[in-house]
Amino acid sequence: MYGWMDNVLRVNLTDRTIKTEFLNKEKLEKYLGGRGLASKMLSDEIDPGIDALSPENKILFAVGPLTAVRGPLTARFMVVTKGPLTGAIACSNSGGTWGAEMRRAGYDVIVIEGKADEPVYLWINGSKVEICSAKNVWGKGVTQATEQLKAETNEKAKVSCIGPAGENLSLISAIINDYHRAAGRSGVGAVMGSKNLKAVVVKGAGKKVQVADPDALKEVAARCREKIKESTTTSMVLPKLGTAMCVVPVNSQGAYLVQNGRKSFIEDDSAINGEALAAKYVVKNSGCSHCMIQCGRETRVPDGLYACEGEGPEYESMWALGACCGILDRLDAVIKANQLCDELGLDTISMGLTISCAMDMFDDELIPVEDIGAPLKFGDAAMVVKLVEDTGYAKGFGAKLAQGSYRLAESYGYPGYSLSSKKQEIAAYDPRGAQGQGLAYATSNRGACHSRANVQMHELMGVNPTVNPHITEGKARLVKDKQDFWSTVDSAGICGFLFLGITNQEFVDALTAVTGIKWDMELVQKTGERIWNMEKLFNLRAGLTVKDDSLPPCFLKIKPENGPTKGMVNKLDEMLPEYYKLRGWNEEGVPTVGKLQELGL
Amino acid sequence: MYGWMDNVLRVNLTDRTIKTEFLNKEKLEKYLGGRGLASKMLSDEIDPGIDALSPENKILFAVGPLTAVRGPLTARFMVVTKGPLTGAIACSNSGGTWGAEMRRAGYDVIVIEGKADEPVYLWINGSKVEICSAKNVWGKGVTQATEQLKAETNEKAKVSCIGPAGENLSLISAIINDYHRAAGRSGVGAVMGSKNLKAVVVKGAGKKVQVADPDALKEVAARCREKIKESTTTSMVLPKLGTAMCVVPVNSQGAYLVQNGRKSFIEDDSAINGEALAAKYVVKNSGCSHCMIQCGRETRVPDGLYACEGEGPEYESMWALGACCGILDRLDAVIKANQLCDELGLDTISMGLTISCAMDMFDDELIPVEDIGAPLKFGDAAMVVKLVEDTGYAKGFGAKLAQGSYRLAESYGYPGYSLSSKKQEIAAYDPRGAQGQGLAYATSNRGACHSRANVQMHELMGVNPTVNPHITEGKARLVKDKQDFWSTVDSAGICGFLFLGITNQEFVDALTAVTGIKWDMELVQKTGERIWNMEKLFNLRAGLTVKDDSLPPCFLKIKPENGPTKGMVNKLDEMLPEYYKLRGWNEEGVPTVGKLQELGL
Repeated sequence: MYGWMDNVLRVNLTDRTIKTEFLNKEKLEKYLGGRGLASKMLSDEIDPGIDALSPENKILFAVGPLTAVRGPLTARFMVVTKGPLTGAIACSNSGGTWGAEMRRAGYDVIVIEGKADEPVYLWINGSKVEICSAKNVWGKGVTQATEQLKAETNEKAKVSCIGPAGENLSLISAIINDYHRAAGRSGVGAVMGSKNLKAVVVKGAGKKVQVADPDALKEVAARCREKIKESTTTSMVLPKLGTAMCVVPVNSQGAYLVQNGRKSFIEDDSAINGEALAAKYVVKNSGCSHCMIQCGRETRVPDGLYACEGEGPEYESMWALGACCGILDRLDAVIKANQLCDELGLDTISMGLTISCAMDMFDDELIPVEDIGAPLKFGDAAMVVKLVEDTGYAKGFGAKLAQGSYRLAESYGYPGYSLSSKKQEIAAYDPRGAQGQGLAYATSNRGACHSRANVQMHELMGVNPTVNPHITEGKARLVKDKQDFWSTVDSAGICGFLFLGITNQEFVDALTAVTGIKWDMELVQKTGERIWNMEKLFNLRAGLTVKDDSLPPCFLKIKPENGPTKGMVNKLDEMLPEYYKLRGWNEEGVPTVGKLQELGL
Repeated sequence: MYGWMDNVLRVNLTDRTIKTEFLNKEKLEKYLGGRGLASKMLSDEIDPGIDALSPENKILFAVGPLTAVRGPLTARFMVVTKGPLTGAIACSNSGGTWGAEMRRAGYDVIVIEGKADEPVYLWINGSKVEICSAKNVWGKGVTQATEQLKAETNEKAKVSCIGPAGENLSLISAIINDYHRAAGRSGVGAVMGSKNLKAVVVKGAGKKVQVADPDALKEVAARCREKIKESTTTSMVLPKLGTAMCVVPVNSQGAYLVQNGRKSFIEDDSAINGEALAAKYVVKNSGCSHCMIQCGRETRVPDGLYACEGEGPEYESMWALGACCGILDRLDAVIKANQLCDELGLDTISMGLTISCAMDMFDDELIPVEDIGAPLKFGDAAMVVKLVEDTGYAKGFGAKLAQGSYRLAESYGYPGYSLSSKKQEIAAYDPRGAQGQGLAYATSNRGACHSRANVQMHELMGVNPTVNPHITEGKARLVKDKQDFWSTVDSAGICGFLFLGITNQEFVDALTAVTGIKWDMELVQKTGERIWNMEKLFNLRAGLTVKDDSLPPCFLKIKPENGPTKGMVNKLDEMLPEYYKLRGWNEEGVPTVGKLQELGL
């Protein structure tokens, strides 16, 4: 079929079998690719009730029909598994060059099953696939492991691997590809660790996907380039500031969480915003395959306690490891902590918010200093850097942090200190200052997440359609529609930032040109709705209930005392029933039979 | 004294006397320069109760100590007079090269008095000053008049002149310098017209102001350049989009007035935002003397009904002649209407809002079609262009429009249709979606104005300190403080957009380096407060009362039906008493004796 390689690579680590299968055509039509297709396959192949770290879990890498098909359409891939942090379906999106390489190797999906009896890595050299011993790289950090695996296989190979955190089964561990790019959330790194799988190394074989209408694709790609050039955001602001461009607008609207949510606003953000990062630490821009925006940043702290070189941080990481831990003046320490997360294979958001949770509890005298080994005060940059390292190696108090903020806080009897939903830490937008964002966190199928609905774009960033962030009216509809929309985008294999330049028209035109199927926005929304409901069914079968569609109590009860959102709380209870109704779900958040039939589920 | 040329040029058109006087040192210390100094001089020299268009009125051109003193500090000048549109003190700020040229000619203030018995222009060739016959240029548009006056005097001379609108005593006429730059508001053009003064032509004599500490000035100028380069807004967004960069953030927050205020939000602004302007019509950037931002734009509509070449429109003009008149898809017509305003010497904001007012009343059947000569529907781009022209020449219905929206609406018995305060039209920020902006409009000494307090920057544009636009709490303080701050900036002779890059520190350091007086923020605020109160006293003596500190009823009573500000009104009555109190004024808005003594007034 046009737009797909038609190949699934299936590797069983227990019995070391390697197979290539054809893609299921019906699933492709209904779930498109990437996130939708892989989630459906996972859902069909495993019992959602299993332990996420057992050999029964599977981990899938998947690209979509638009992944690396032509510049400037980008090259995202998805990692899908049952998430050990959340117990829900996990689906982590990453960029870089690895996804494009997987496509050139000829695969749409890689399914990894079972558990190796000793550390291994998978070496995919086009159609030649091997399971190799990873004993030389086990225990190594991401940079060293990546370099060594390239040396063992092929210098041009691309490496997606875990660091010590994933090996140690940290529930906030990530999978890192291309040295610095992360499939970050829900503890996907630990699933690889549980399978004794250090890395998936891939080298393309020059395979190209068959496109239904190459001329039409060429035309729409040219249109995308024009739009990206025309848009100030994609042509100037993102290249200059990276995703850290969000600090000023979000903070200026009082939706920037400080000190684990005690405040929502910094009077002066000039030491930790995107401009400060660009002016002082960015060496040059970087980016994913096929992308002309290049929003990534190579950074360097030239000297001092936190001297380092590497990539990032992104906006969310800057916040989680910075302001949320009360660090308002040491961007150098934040850069260092971020680079350590990449190196050790940790999710920056969950890491930062687990440390901030510990700081909050320490300040309230709920964690004794003996447990930590030293006082842990808000704003203590040196402790943040140290605790990231200890978490990666599960050393001392780091072993507790490695379980994420929810389990940490719960172990002391105060789970409400964790800024999480479905045990996954929220992102850098205070739901008190952005009502819809709160609903989006609470209902996200993979646990709290900003990118499952991206309503912050409409509530706080001026993206059309813009909405008043402070009201609940209309938010159930907005969240539902955007969740459906992004489900399809994630399944197509391209990057959300493209949409700060291109429009939906370019998106459907590209899908049509590549797949030969006539796409329009109705089909985009319907496909997304099907994917969303399918993921929801996975979670229900995994044992999640209406109680898991929730927010931490502080956002529902505690009012910020300063800044533009002074006196506000999130009114989730006003939005959730309407959201369920719009979704065709009952009051317990369970899809009705009618809705499932309508979607062919 | 350092920072000033110490020269006032005084020209009496009635008796044709020309004198040079020394600046009053005490006034300089208390009122700085530019707006403050000229307003104080006007206030001392005329009876505020006179008819603004009588020979007893005076018109002053003034620069500040920082005007054109060194790049990138910019080169603004002020036109101060009693405003015929408002009956209040008028103070219109303009850029371009004219102000720098006036400084090089050796003057801080030019005072023009009386009335010539026939059309004249003033030719200032350094210290040689003549009153010349303007019979060859009277009746001419700005471009032709400017070119001819340069030919008659010196090709390097700079021209500030009125168009037919000012000659015809339109109360919404502007003074245009450098072909396209406007001292736009309050009908200042008509004051020149009433004096039979077509133009002030100036050529410098290479005079330079004495600076107290040239090395310190050099250092602070370098710091300003760095900050302007570092700031994304001043280095990228303003250069790319010009002031039209505001369309997206303001509209996205539901504060963009459409159809004379019937709506506050456009679902899709992509045809009329800054990016559309940049992509389709901008030929190149332009800017004022000494400025490195260059936010002006040379534009061209290559063909069609509205083919034209010229400069602009700025954000406010684009809105007033565009969305406020219901034009959401014909940027070419808006560019043409804007260029006609420049050519005929009309204030774009007042012109647009007078037409939109007429459209609103026509739609409600309050103005008969016979009066207009043709139906006048919202969105009728051809009618907007035609009516601008008719207004400039006071032709037919244009003669009514030439009196501004308040007098137009009042003449039909419905003054509430005019979106104005003190009879001057408001700017492009809906006070229902920006509470403080409403208070700023109502209390502005020169009639409704955004630039007297610039609170839109803090309510809608993310400039520090940012505030929630929807609440009234804290707004009285913000408006007061910012009114005081900008009074001093306007008196210093630089541009407000600099502050999107530089900080207050650079501002006070530059003032200190130039004047030799130790400036700090306390002195900035206190000087501004003195200026503000002095202007207020002028208005009280002119007969304005607490009733003039008001907003049009629609903003107080009618709730927008769509967009992010749906259901909101401006709560002026909550803010105004607090504002008076903070100002040390009584309940009638009259400064107390104690406050006047404190300020040395």
